[in-house]
Amino acid sequence: MADDATTDPALRSWVPGADDSGFPIQHLPYGTFSVAGDHPRAGVAIGDQIVDLAVAARAKLFDAVLHDPVAAFRGPDLTPFLALGPAAWQRVRAELSDLLRADSTRSRPMGDALVPQADATLHLPFAVADYVDFYSSLEHATNVGRLFRPGADPLLPNWRHLPVGYHGRAGTVVVSGTPVVRPAGQAAGPEGPVFGPSRRLDIELEVGFVVGTPSLLGRPVPPAAVREHVFGAVLVNDWSARDIQAWEYQPLGPFLGKSFATSISPWVTPLAALEPSRVDARPQEPPVLPYLRVDEPWALDLHLEIGLRSAGMAAAGTPFDVISRPDFARLYWTLPQQLAHLTVNGASLRTGDLLASGTVSGDRGDEGSLLERTLGGREPLRLSDGSERTFLADGDEVVLRGSAGGGGRPRLTLAEVTGTILPTHR
Amino acid sequence: MADDATTDPALRSWVPGADDSGFPIQHLPYGTFSVAGDHPRAGVAIGDQIVDLAVAARAKLFDAVLHDPVAAFRGPDLTPFLALGPAAWQRVRAELSDLLRADSTRSRPMGDALVPQADATLHLPFAVADYVDFYSSLEHATNVGRLFRPGADPLLPNWRHLPVGYHGRAGTVVVSGTPVVRPAGQAAGPEGPVFGPSRRLDIELEVGFVVGTPSLLGRPVPPAAVREHVFGAVLVNDWSARDIQAWEYQPLGPFLGKSFATSISPWVTPLAALEPSRVDARPQEPPVLPYLRVDEPWALDLHLEIGLRSAGMAAAGTPFDVISRPDFARLYWTLPQQLAHLTVNGASLRTGDLLASGTVSGDRGDEGSLLERTLGGREPLRLSDGSERTFLADGDEVVLRGSAGGGGRPRLTLAEVTGTILPTHR
Repeated sequence: MADDATTDPALRSWVPGADDSGFPIQHLPYGTFSVAGDHPRAGVAIGDQIVDLAVAARAKLFDAVLHDPVAAFRGPDLTPFLALGPAAWQRVRAELSDLLRADSTRSRPMGDALVPQADATLHLPFAVADYVDFYSSLEHATNVGRLFRPGADPLLPNWRHLPVGYHGRAGTVVVSGTPVVRPAGQAAGPEGPVFGPSRRLDIELEVGFVVGTPSLLGRPVPPAAVREHVFGAVLVNDWSARDIQAWEYQPLGPFLGKSFATSISPWVTPLAALEPSRVDARPQEPPVLPYLRVDEPWALDLHLEIGLRSAGMAAAGTPFDVISRPDFARLYWTLPQQLAHLTVNGASLRTGDLLASGTVSGDRGDEGSLLERTLGGREPLRLSDGSERTFLADGDEVVLRGSAGGGGRPRLTLAEVTGTILPTHR
Repeated sequence: MADDATTDPALRSWVPGADDSGFPIQHLPYGTFSVAGDHPRAGVAIGDQIVDLAVAARAKLFDAVLHDPVAAFRGPDLTPFLALGPAAWQRVRAELSDLLRADSTRSRPMGDALVPQADATLHLPFAVADYVDFYSSLEHATNVGRLFRPGADPLLPNWRHLPVGYHGRAGTVVVSGTPVVRPAGQAAGPEGPVFGPSRRLDIELEVGFVVGTPSLLGRPVPPAAVREHVFGAVLVNDWSARDIQAWEYQPLGPFLGKSFATSISPWVTPLAALEPSRVDARPQEPPVLPYLRVDEPWALDLHLEIGLRSAGMAAAGTPFDVISRPDFARLYWTLPQQLAHLTVNGASLRTGDLLASGTVSGDRGDEGSLLERTLGGREPLRLSDGSERTFLADGDEVVLRGSAGGGGRPRLTLAEVTGTILPTHR
């Protein structure tokens, strides 16, 4: 099995176990971490270790590639580094590869900058500027349309012409592991609205893209400029309270049904690491308007799954039940199209803007939400502890997992997103 | 005419002309300014002057009332001061009143901190965290419902039960005076969508409230806590492209029809200055749910108007035509209700959150948008240069004006919001 990945020292790392960990030298995702209550700073994951970029910068390991590495990596989050733009991202990535490769001549100073992931607390990796949530899965939009507007055409007339999206609440984007308090709110009742904890608390599995380089107000960003502006990708759980959402969302869209929490990965996978996962997108019919035309293949072949376990399963150490494996490569609207649409009216981008795909759904059994997976609650799921779920129960823990590569290429693990449901405060 | 306002030295200022300027000692709005390209810092408007709070802090004028006045006011915006909370806001306001009153013993050091407004460039006063736009005018919601859904009940079933709202784009909130580039985008055409500059570019006159004190995730903020969290008010022009909006907004709400620009006042009027303008709100029927009940009168008696002039009128020095004078006190949903609703699901507040009222419309002739004012374009307005308007033309300049008080009380001018329409970039 002496393929390139095992013989070429540039494709392996001297960090023990890194090559097969999901965090090999081909990945190098960025995050923000702290140790023992120290202040948060920037880091890169390799194997089960973190490169403390603040320490590495002070040790002058990036002096050849950045003007002010200390400022770029001192924290409290990745924002200063993300703002530097694609040339800086590329130079730092190349330098990190050189420092971490199996035959590196600089493994000793780099070793001094390593921190075990087990000792670190991970924080929200970047300050979320604006959070835009798209609605780009044909299967998801079709499923939801059927459930909410039975008998009508499930796709609204605009859906195949533009990537429908809306703004979510940036201030309640939280890092994986943050507990989610069940939201209370109004829902429709038989004799008018009723108030109480949501009874239809749901998951939405999404992939989010993080903007690094800002753009100018009044100047659209073309699809071909995607690498100039987008730094990397995270998994996103866009928690949703379906009963609150259904009552509130007309005519201005989702608000409190979504705004209580959105969880993201602690590690941002650079877009550069996903280049080998780019594949042709599914055909779009009718053809899109010129501003949405993309020449390159920009679907991403990511393997995604949703895991769910009850409090009892967690207490017993039972693994998560995998309830869905959606196929991200089938997303109808691609990242360059979302970026071009978002800015075609002149809206500017800021460092930290988060563009989420919208719920990623596959065929029956591989939907990205419980709403779809249980057909609006009509077909409950049975968990391995024998309990049934339509929507989430208090104590339930959800995990979103994702990966790229495999099949001859190194497998990159998109950092998982977990969250446990806590009861509404009284 | 020797009423209190003219005889009590505590109610007058030694700054020449301040008492009758709209920026008297009872007002003291906060903003961010720079002089001759220097870095932006915090200031307070008094008459035609600005108190340079950075200079005043370094002169130790706030040492009796703040722990670290230099940090609070050093800029680049008001965020550090807003985050200090209501006790600090109140102490600084009292100290400023003492420094600026007609018989102040400290007028000399304060005088050294004054900068003429004419010499200053005003900047966005605070970093906008999340921007929420409500839909709280009964007249506006009714007008829009009639135009968009003719023949149906203009109010949707949820409207009288909750303050409908959605998240707008925080990154494109700009300060008054910023030109607005006409957005391009998709609109419905006879044979599918067409792309081009918006043909129905519109105004929305709103009042926005700025959050100072943050709140905790998972913990709703009750209506009675409004003064703990909300610092002050600005005027808002939520520019809207009606043709883009109409095609895109189903099912997730407005997006590109709004996200290209939102203009706000450069000066934030403290909520404390608006206390005398609090009046009883109009009755709400049916009664609201308990979490939305408000004991105090929280309608605000603000006088608002929209001015419009063409490029030709501006070149000739012709004043703005006043095209509408909406009545803010008639707003159906009040600020404490908006705040309580926004957080009832556990969503947290951040310093810099902007809560806008939604378009403020009065009776026929006093609507807060051109869409309503011209009945969807069917009844054009005639400007004083003889030209007609349904929606905005390139070169048009809009001004939003507002005031509180008058009629025996000092009149406070809410800082005006202007913007001129530039053609779409080609």
